Amino acid sequence: MTLTSLSESFCLSTSGKGTYEITDNVRAIARQCGVESGTVTVFLRHTSASLVIMENADPSARTDLHAYFDRLVPEDEPYFTHTYEGADDMPSHIRMALTASSIVVPILDGTPALGTWQGIFVFEHRTAPHTREIVVNVTGK
Amino acid sequence: MTLTSLSESFCLSTSGKGTYEITDNVRAIARQCGVESGTVTVFLRHTSASLVIMENADPSARTDLHAYFDRLVPEDEPYFTHTYEGADDMPSHIRMALTASSIVVPILDGTPALGTWQGIFVFEHRTAPHTREIVVNVTGK
Amino acid sequence: MTLTSLSESFCLSTSGKGTYEITDNVRAIARQCGVESGTVTVFLRHTSASLVIMENADPSARTDLHAYFDRLVPEDEPYFTHTYEGADDMPSHIRMALTASSIVVPILDGTPALGTWQGIFVFEHRTAPHTREIVVNVTGK
Repeated sequence: MTLTSLSESFCLSTSGKGTYEITDNVRAIARQCGVESGTVTVFLRHTSASLVIMENADPSARTDLHAYFDRLVPEDEPYFTHTYEGADDMPSHIRMALTASSIVVPILDGTPALGTWQGIFVFEHRTAPHTREIVVNVTGK
Repeated sequence: MTLTSLSESFCLSTSGKGTYEITDNVRAIARQCGVESGTVTVFLRHTSASLVIMENADPSARTDLHAYFDRLVPEDEPYFTHTYEGADDMPSHIRMALTASSIVVPILDGTPALGTWQGIFVFEHRTAPHTREIVVNVTGK
Repeated sequence: MTLTSLSESFCLSTSGKGTYEITDNVRAIARQCGVESGTVTVFLRHTSASLVIMENADPSARTDLHAYFDRLVPEDEPYFTHTYEGADDMPSHIRMALTASSIVVPILDGTPALGTWQGIFVFEHRTAPHTREIVVNVTGK
């Protein structure tokens, strides 16, 4: 079988800060390519949201993750100057930088090699609703 | 030469919190593929351990890294609710989210282009011994 | 069109802590490959500098990012032991571990799929001037 490489994108509507699972979307794109061995690359095209792998069995893990990031990167730090879009503006960029914009998962035996409890989530850092675009590439044979 | 893509996995036994080097394992898989130009993707299939690139010459850098993360994400935060596996449960997920689950290294002139001091490590965040599975994909020509 | 995979490197001179944009360099390498669908992988070969995606329209976002990291990973922590290269030695490794060494961007319709405000930056963590080497791989068809 010859190597192939396919890129496509999809959108996700977010309704405030939090994590939104996209694992099934990523798996579906990988499956339609019929790649046995390769990689699936997930990329988020924004600077105020990011990607994160998190346990997807018990939602309490994500609740605590959100609470931790609210403390790690507080709003209204007196030294922030990039604030014209509101108190969640600069914290959203920093939280993005501390997590990921791209995640690459090998495809092993025809399936993205995510562990049993690994889900891929969009981590929305803005309070207002947003439409987020995710680009997925599958390369392999 | 035609492009190739190979995925394979190996396991690592960890004996408590800390960093465990896997650079030689990754180099060996890349070498056996005979790829001159491409990428090697390293992926850890767990949510309570992660991957980190760290200086691999002087172990004191890793000692300080461990100490820093113990302070950055303390155990027993009163607001943690995801605690049924113990005090190291939720901190392990957060430390994973703050580091990496996938690392992609270009292959340049037949060799993964790691810098002189860059080692790839599994960053174990749990106190109890665990078996961790790492998946490696090599794609290129 | 057949798949191709090309790796090449370039150097960047830094003049102290801060962020240095390399988006145009990455775009230029991707463009010369003529890949329609694939990935571009950016990798930094150092342990005291890293890569970060940040808003590239308003420089105040990066000013605040620098200030945040100065607070998140302070110099002269009394428990640091890895200090023989100075007060910025150990913090530089930790700041590297908290951001990224590799960023992978899908190529969609012949262009790296960066969002409107996403720039790729080298995040220099050392005070003294350094020469940093970046390796870029483009794989696709």
